[in-house]
Amino acid sequence: MLFSFELLAREGAARAGVFQTVHGPLETPIYAPVGTQATVKALTPQQLQEVGAALVLANTYHLYLRPGDALIAEMGGLHAFMAWQGPMLTDSGGFQVFSLAGQGDKLSLRQIDADGVTFRSHLNGSRHRFTPEKVMEIEQNLGADIAMVLDECAVPDDYTYQRDFALPRTHAWAERCKVAHTRQDQALFGIVQGGIFPDLREASARHLVDIGFPGYAIGGLSVGESKSEMLDTLDVTVPLLPEDKPRYLMGVGTPEDLVEGVARGIDIFDCVLPTRVARNGQALVRTGKLNMRNAQFAEDPAPIDATCGCYTCATFSRAYIRHLVMAKEMLSATLLSIHNLYTMLSLIRDIRTAILETRFADFRAAFWEARVDAGSTRAVQDLSCR
Amino acid sequence: MLFSFELLAREGAARAGVFQTVHGPLETPIYAPVGTQATVKALTPQQLQEVGAALVLANTYHLYLRPGDALIAEMGGLHAFMAWQGPMLTDSGGFQVFSLAGQGDKLSLRQIDADGVTFRSHLNGSRHRFTPEKVMEIEQNLGADIAMVLDECAVPDDYTYQRDFALPRTHAWAERCKVAHTRQDQALFGIVQGGIFPDLREASARHLVDIGFPGYAIGGLSVGESKSEMLDTLDVTVPLLPEDKPRYLMGVGTPEDLVEGVARGIDIFDCVLPTRVARNGQALVRTGKLNMRNAQFAEDPAPIDATCGCYTCATFSRAYIRHLVMAKEMLSATLLSIHNLYTMLSLIRDIRTAILETRFADFRAAFWEARVDAGSTRAVQDLSCR
Repeated sequence: MLFSFELLAREGAARAGVFQTVHGPLETPIYAPVGTQATVKALTPQQLQEVGAALVLANTYHLYLRPGDALIAEMGGLHAFMAWQGPMLTDSGGFQVFSLAGQGDKLSLRQIDADGVTFRSHLNGSRHRFTPEKVMEIEQNLGADIAMVLDECAVPDDYTYQRDFALPRTHAWAERCKVAHTRQDQALFGIVQGGIFPDLREASARHLVDIGFPGYAIGGLSVGESKSEMLDTLDVTVPLLPEDKPRYLMGVGTPEDLVEGVARGIDIFDCVLPTRVARNGQALVRTGKLNMRNAQFAEDPAPIDATCGCYTCATFSRAYIRHLVMAKEMLSATLLSIHNLYTMLSLIRDIRTAILETRFADFRAAFWEARVDAGSTRAVQDLSCR
Repeated sequence: MLFSFELLAREGAARAGVFQTVHGPLETPIYAPVGTQATVKALTPQQLQEVGAALVLANTYHLYLRPGDALIAEMGGLHAFMAWQGPMLTDSGGFQVFSLAGQGDKLSLRQIDADGVTFRSHLNGSRHRFTPEKVMEIEQNLGADIAMVLDECAVPDDYTYQRDFALPRTHAWAERCKVAHTRQDQALFGIVQGGIFPDLREASARHLVDIGFPGYAIGGLSVGESKSEMLDTLDVTVPLLPEDKPRYLMGVGTPEDLVEGVARGIDIFDCVLPTRVARNGQALVRTGKLNMRNAQFAEDPAPIDATCGCYTCATFSRAYIRHLVMAKEMLSATLLSIHNLYTMLSLIRDIRTAILETRFADFRAAFWEARVDAGSTRAVQDLSCR
């Protein structure tokens, strides 16, 4: 079997394991940097490897529109195209169709029906249609190790819409995706939806597990609901997923989301946060973020984080990083992306080690204690993922 | 003596040598990438080292305005601030004062007199004054291995202005810079001016040599004059400079400028061209440049240059580079800067080796032959430095 998931240790709901892919093992829990357009912004694959990335996510919607999935297939697939030799994951494009092409006054740009979704490109307004079968064709062309089924990511707090429209479509599409998906070297994960409603999440989890997938994602979170609603939803949903399959919390999260997600049994995370805030001049630390524009850093010879082992912290002062940010130099995005990804990736590695050594409970307590301490430091600000 | 220049080989006017600095030897002829704001745009110092850079230039005007030379001195100087361990060179800021703050309708922003120049910042309009003594203070704060005297870079074809104003000022300022300059670990180079006029260039060269510097620059070229005017000026000027001192052709050039400059006895070059055109989606090859936006590259699996040894060409296809350029991804600037600098730096290394092996004449002939051949290839376009 090409894909296997082995659990090495558990502590409460938290687990440490290994998910095997054709491009190598994924040591879970794991955090995936996002390479939307077949590049993790501002980083070479070499730098990405150096910060400790193992799994990289790319966005089907963006790559389908530009440069096109057929072109990428012709170039040997996503791994060869972007020169990333490790495991990759593609989303279904659904989330982008519903967000980029479906928000506010762009709502008319997107029409959803039982068979699929018609939308206009955010690039040039051209018309496109995603069906489960079309999305499987695209994701198989891209050739990531993990592909996601097409789902409907609806607003999380509209019960009637979720129950009568979004969920039935999500479930029917998951079945059609499984039928249409044929690549043996690619694992197709199902996605549980249901907003913030426990009964819908439960129905969705049971339905997806009935269809049967080598891994399960929890979708539709971190899209506007509160942090406690997100965690409550995990509390309800995760226990209904099979122990022996990896669980992926899509589009999440922050340092605290990693700690609390793992504590509830999540194995895989991804988020644009580390690289997005880097381009905005912000540095992540485990307790929050630093705005490198802040004048207090102008003459600060210390690294961003004296405890950090990344190239940026080993090489440059806060004063230099601030100068680059103020001068709008591209290198600021590169150096802050390196630091921010290293911060997230070393955090998830430390979480994994703590589980393997049965001291995750202590790790979690110490993590929150440090945040409380940091709360008294003016420089450190809170952050949210989206 | 901290600075020594040893000539290892000559072929005609071309020379290969070694200029010793406190941060290591410079093997001449050499090409310096430009790190205007204490960063070669889009590259880490690690990447800069990997492409083969030895000498890096930074701009005094920019760093004086932001973050300030006093701050950089406090942070241990330019090398420590930007984490570049190799030799560095700073210009005097004069060129930027005369170009950024002194062109067209901004002419009123700049007032020059016998003692110095008053100008307004292009960043915020604040008033500043550069005198020879002030510039020496700034460059000594920055602490590059090679510093340049303050000169007046005037329009190259106004004989009366050059003779009656620009040259007398340039010469008087060179003397004052030499007096004001005290750092023993920094070599101060003089600058020969005189536009495109042989008698003025001759007078300027003799004057500067009389003052006496450890190296001489030829300034005021590649600023609007024709290519043949530039080369004619080198033919007149270089023979008047001492054999045993390095000669630096400021702000030049293109691949052909390197070949023809070396043929006329130039040892040091710098130019923003490789990194500037990279950010514009253009790839340098020895015979010209490729516009990576060109649709002909959309499905091209070949590297930019199959003969190139850089990371970009070893790793990525033209199709991928084109995708990054079209998608406006920062990585395109990084990968093209790596390639373009490697192209220039490997060219100058090959030139040096040819001189050491007494086959530079053949190398030069083959270089021009390849350009003629490439002229028949639609994809390759000509380029100019500024």
